[in-house]
Formats: sequence, C-alpha cells, structure tokens
Amino acid sequence: MREKILRASIPLFDKKGYSETSIQDIVEVLGVTKGTFYYYYKSKQELLKDINVTYIQNLLDEQKKILNDDTKTYREKVYNNMLMVIRTIRNERQSARVFFREMRHLEEHNLKLIIQKRYEFRMNTQHMIEKAIENGEFRDRIRPDILTFGILGMTNWSYYWYNPDGEVSEKELVDLYMELILNGVKN
Amino acid sequence: MREKILRASIPLFDKKGYSETSIQDIVEVLGVTKGTFYYYYKSKQELLKDINVTYIQNLLDEQKKILNDDTKTYREKVYNNMLMVIRTIRNERQSARVFFREMRHLEEHNLKLIIQKRYEFRMNTQHMIEKAIENGEFRDRIRPDILTFGILGMTNWSYYWYNPDGEVSEKELVDLYMELILNGVKN
Repeated sequence: MREKILRASIPLFDKKGYSETSIQDIVEVLGVTKGTFYYYYKSKQELLKDINVTYIQNLLDEQKKILNDDTKTYREKVYNNMLMVIRTIRNERQSARVFFREMRHLEEHNLKLIIQKRYEFRMNTQHMIEKAIENGEFRDRIRPDILTFGILGMTNWSYYWYNPDGEVSEKELVDLYMELILNGVKN
Repeated sequence: MREKILRASIPLFDKKGYSETSIQDIVEVLGVTKGTFYYYYKSKQELLKDINVTYIQNLLDEQKKILNDDTKTYREKVYNNMLMVIRTIRNERQSARVFFREMRHLEEHNLKLIIQKRYEFRMNTQHMIEKAIENGEFRDRIRPDILTFGILGMTNWSYYWYNPDGEVSEKELVDLYMELILNGVKN
C-alpha cells in the first residue's frame, strides 16, 4: 500500500503541484481512508521526500551497475550512463518533473539528503569522463566538470521534450548525442 | 507600478510557488493595497502570464538581433545565441525557474501563447544550424533538430547549476561548450 500511495501521488503532484494536492485528493484516487494514508506516511512532506529519494536512488543504483561493468571502456560507460537516463523517461517522466519542480518544498534535512545524492550522481558521471581522459579515450584538454554539466544538460533536458514513442528511438537519440560529443559538428 | 508588481512577485513565485503565493503576500512586499494590485492586474493568473510572456519575449527579441546581424557567420550566430541565453541567467534566473516550473498553472489560452513563443525560439535556433550546414560551416550529416535540442539542453540546464560570479565566466562557459560542439572530445 505504501508503494500504491507513492504511485498514485506522483501524477497528482505533477499535474496540480505539491502545494495544491491534498491528502484527500490522494486517498480519493485510491478509494481508501485518510487513516490508511497516515498508517503509511506521517505527512505529505514524508511522501514528497519518498518520491524524490526513490527517483534519485534508482538512478544511482543503475549508474553503479554501469560504473562497475569491467567489460566496458569508460567511453562506453559514458554512453551507457546517457542511455540509462534517457530510458528512464519512459517510466519516470512524471517523477522527474516532480523531482525538479517540487524540490523547493522539501524541508531542510530532506533537501540536504537529495542534494547529496544528486551530487553523487554528478560526481560519478564526472569520474567516468576523467577516467576516459586518463585512458586516452577523450582528449586531455577538455574540462571534465564542464563536460559533465553539458552531458547532464542534454540528457536531463530531454525530459521536457523527448517522446520515446516518437520518430527517434532512445538508442538513436543517444547515438546522435554521443556522435556530437565525440566528433563535434565542424565541417 | 505594473512593472513593480511583476518584479516583486517573481522571487515569491520562485521561492513559495505560484499556488502558495497570495496577492496579499505580493502587496505586503510592496507596501500597497490590494486595490492597487487589482488596478494593474485582473488576477494572479494574468500576472503569471505576464511574467512568462516577458521572459520569453525578451529572449525572442535578443535572438532576433543576433539572427539579423549580417556581419556574422551562422556559426557565430549559434555561438552568440548560446551566450545570450547564458547571460540572461544573471538577471533572469528566477523568472526562468518560474517559467519552467509554473507553466502548468497557466490557463489553456495563456499556455498556448507561451508554447507558440517557445516553439518560435527553438525554430530560430534550428534555422541558424540549418544555415550553418547549408554554408558548409557544419557537417551535413548532423540532424539539425536533435542538435538544437542538445544545445538548448546545455544552455537551459545551466539555469540549475551555473553561477555567473564563480570561477568560470559566461564567455568561458560558452567557449567550452562551443569547442565541444565544434570539435568533440575524441582523442
């Protein structure tokens, strides 16, 4: 039921916003009582924290698998990391939007936890890039921190526009981005 | 006074969100009466629309100057377009966040207007890229639509992390991004 409450609240927070969604709205969708809600969650705040932690922890877990895959080069890991983020759009688009938009409603201690996990995700991405430079896969004149922000910008922004059921598949999109990152566009 | 109301409401909408900010909150910051507010704005909705139109129209106006500057190549126009977006962070960061986060609270007809203007901005960016390909400045095997999304992702995402008063200046950041876009990172 905790999972059900979480899943039911995400589309509501996405559409109406955290502030405008009441616990009443959530229990109505599920056809349960407020008592049931409070059995699983102390407050709406705890629910928002849970949505955000679930979203970022899932990304971190998937990233860890990519990072630890010794059969791949670091350049391939950078590719797989991008593909993994873009693939989550299909299932996690609403969570992602709640994550980025509603983060400011988190209380101090919850916000700290999320910021720490975001930082970890960014640093793992940067680590892949640094290793690719160290191994001579990427040029050594690039700045790993700025390249990391550039790559995260391209992938995270796709939540706002990309339709995984449209003309361009997830793999095609990442192939195009990776080609841009590797070879650039200069004639 | 209309401009003052607009400027006072942006930090409130950014911090508390559109739904949780009352007209009372806004007039308190300014030390005026609700009557004054309603003399200039019919509703909070009209104010949100005004913030969003002002933000995107400013970008469109600046973009038009870049597009019409015949002394520049299209590659230079792509560069100037990126620099212009990144430079607005200094003054318009809060407006940008309100723009992206609170858009879903716009009523249908207001939302349509904003979506139309966003589309225009994206198409103008894509036009610069198509012209750069046509003139042989960019390779002809790239997809202009995907490159446009990639560039807008990198620049728009910087609203979430970039500090214009930090270690990397606005021009340095765009130089690094442009170098990445032109030459890629492959060793």
